[in-house]
Amino acid sequence: MNPNDIHLLLTGDELMSGDTVDSNSSMIAQSLAAFGHGVAEKVTLGDDRARLVAALQRAAGTARILIMNGGLGPTQDDLTAELVAAAASVELVLHPEADKHVRDWCAARSIEPNDANLKQAWLPEGAAIIHNPRGSAVGFAMDVSGTLILTTPGVPGELRAMLPEVCERIVAAIGGGESHRVRLQTFGIGESTAQARIDEDSEHWPVDVVLGFRAGMPQLEIKLTAGSASPEVDQCRQTLERLIGDHIIGEDDVTLAGALQQVLREQGKKMVTAESCTGGLIAAMMTAEPGSSAVFEAGFVTYANSIKHSVLGVDNTTLETEGAVSESVVRQMLSGALERSGADIGVAVSGIAGPDGGTEEKPVGTVWLAWGTTDEMHALKTVLPTDRAMFQKLVAAAGLDLIRRQLLGLPKLPHYFSRRAI
Amino acid sequence: MNPNDIHLLLTGDELMSGDTVDSNSSMIAQSLAAFGHGVAEKVTLGDDRARLVAALQRAAGTARILIMNGGLGPTQDDLTAELVAAAASVELVLHPEADKHVRDWCAARSIEPNDANLKQAWLPEGAAIIHNPRGSAVGFAMDVSGTLILTTPGVPGELRAMLPEVCERIVAAIGGGESHRVRLQTFGIGESTAQARIDEDSEHWPVDVVLGFRAGMPQLEIKLTAGSASPEVDQCRQTLERLIGDHIIGEDDVTLAGALQQVLREQGKKMVTAESCTGGLIAAMMTAEPGSSAVFEAGFVTYANSIKHSVLGVDNTTLETEGAVSESVVRQMLSGALERSGADIGVAVSGIAGPDGGTEEKPVGTVWLAWGTTDEMHALKTVLPTDRAMFQKLVAAAGLDLIRRQLLGLPKLPHYFSRRAI
Repeated sequence: MNPNDIHLLLTGDELMSGDTVDSNSSMIAQSLAAFGHGVAEKVTLGDDRARLVAALQRAAGTARILIMNGGLGPTQDDLTAELVAAAASVELVLHPEADKHVRDWCAARSIEPNDANLKQAWLPEGAAIIHNPRGSAVGFAMDVSGTLILTTPGVPGELRAMLPEVCERIVAAIGGGESHRVRLQTFGIGESTAQARIDEDSEHWPVDVVLGFRAGMPQLEIKLTAGSASPEVDQCRQTLERLIGDHIIGEDDVTLAGALQQVLREQGKKMVTAESCTGGLIAAMMTAEPGSSAVFEAGFVTYANSIKHSVLGVDNTTLETEGAVSESVVRQMLSGALERSGADIGVAVSGIAGPDGGTEEKPVGTVWLAWGTTDEMHALKTVLPTDRAMFQKLVAAAGLDLIRRQLLGLPKLPHYFSRRAI
Repeated sequence: MNPNDIHLLLTGDELMSGDTVDSNSSMIAQSLAAFGHGVAEKVTLGDDRARLVAALQRAAGTARILIMNGGLGPTQDDLTAELVAAAASVELVLHPEADKHVRDWCAARSIEPNDANLKQAWLPEGAAIIHNPRGSAVGFAMDVSGTLILTTPGVPGELRAMLPEVCERIVAAIGGGESHRVRLQTFGIGESTAQARIDEDSEHWPVDVVLGFRAGMPQLEIKLTAGSASPEVDQCRQTLERLIGDHIIGEDDVTLAGALQQVLREQGKKMVTAESCTGGLIAAMMTAEPGSSAVFEAGFVTYANSIKHSVLGVDNTTLETEGAVSESVVRQMLSGALERSGADIGVAVSGIAGPDGGTEEKPVGTVWLAWGTTDEMHALKTVLPTDRAMFQKLVAAAGLDLIRRQLLGLPKLPHYFSRRAI
């Protein structure tokens, strides 16, 4: 037995049929990573007694820790407690603490506990419960042949609420210190460029700090992890600030829209959008963030040319001679939007999202952006040859980032666009 | 050996670290389902030689089919070909067809094949290639101890393109008829209500047809599956049309926006949006669909009250006396949007998305919708007590569905809203 081997056994027919994409194991792995642990093997099975028994037999005595996920519910398909009891050669018994949990849970909902509810209080004899603050089914911990089995429910919200206790029990069993991790959200720089800049500067990079990337289009997350709370992580963070600082929009789960909202709030400013090819996506991204009403004034989705003229005052002659996808038109769209809304700053976009509508001169993926204020307005043309959904996402994200850069006095363009601007 | 057992072995460190959520196995399961097959066991491992060897040994001779996913790339971490060769006790040899594929792939990109590229042409002796129309790494098929091993790449787009050939090889080995499956997209009716209506009508439901649901907020997918092409599936579809027909928006992957675009096209009409609490999401959903410029005229995101007045002409006195979330305001927003855009039909929404901004009279989740034409305009108030993101999604979806219903002359409200309208 490898003394630190953690295995994962996921159960549920919905995981086998393809109807559910498993995100629980990713959640579990990320929780373990905070303590320096990882999942070594993962097995996924339907609600199938014979296969589950075989998998339990294989893991018990091999893995040091076995996290089971799913199969704790009230129905006959939920086999976890019964099978762990069989593997440990003990009986299922009514667990007083679990019984109280189920009854309290039902009482809080003014329902009478039925047999299905109460089934969840029958656990293998000798099991310790893992508390479930969100649902009726508790998890439990049980030693089988030297393997610590930890059972958790398949409902993601319940699992998330129970993972701290699961990790506590794992650390108690096999150790593991809370590692120091910083997650930075960036936009407009690719993994390879970021990596190359770090490599060129490697004398400032302590060997104890692990660098990781996670591409979450359109943002790129950069993770810095060290074994323990360490000044080295802060040193690396400072190095990153120096190398790619203007691309860092914030920490943890901050979005481009969230970061921009904060800057607008700090500066007491309001913004406006005038969108053609993104069709409202920039406005929707801004207003998806709570609190956006303090900084978001208005959005104009001027899809048709006639609307660009009638609503934003774009000149009809310009539309005819230069076309809707042109510098003059996006500048006039932005001017019109700023004037009509009274907002301080804004962005306007017009492009060809595809799949149709491209020409030789303006292929699918061509886009003009204008951003800024009445006094300081910029414009940029670029070509993003990708599918419609990704094109719209990238253009919208760029629009938000360009405003953020101008408000903060950062370099005008991110690496990605300074390389591609035409 | 179970003669129909299909196992899945997924490899890749990114699947263990939690950085990547595995959607490939769902894609594989859905492809197999079309032939009446399912995945019996699924094992996921990192790029770890010893564990992969053990898993291969366990599967070979046990499973009838083993689909391997991942580990076909050009780097040293990519172990699949080497390990399958070892399991089959054969050498890796340069496969002429794979070699040609790699060289053609490089030539099409005007690059000189390097050692890493060419590594992908070395396959176990006796393997048959599985063509990869999207990438440089071919898959291969190989019999090991009576188990047919099929290897596929981890890149989802490449896997998708190769699954038809994978399924062909499986059907050639173990049979399986193409099953008859209809997928219907619905909106505005819950799984339990749909199921209850079907149960009440069960005499019209042939036992051979399996009914399945997949909740894909805000849409609900209903799947009808029968063993073979059968009139019974059509009969069930007709039953569903009778029971919940106005909630069915279309087949396969159609979205609410896509369905509405089609209706607008057929009737030669154009639409407009006036959004407050959804902040542009309705417009963004419409314009995410290719071809939307033919039917989508304009969108107004009038977040601030002053903009509702200045841009859409909402009366200031009404805003003061009745508040922004009121029937009069959404009706005036829609009238203003229809007039300013010249569109035929539209929707306007104003509500409290939260988490802040609620009052006792108008709690978070309160929303007024107005929809229709200048001559036939309707309004509805409802309360959707959920989080901000889900509130915005539901309101936007409802807005699109209400227009669809009016254009098609269907019952004014879906079940979900007729139950909750206030």
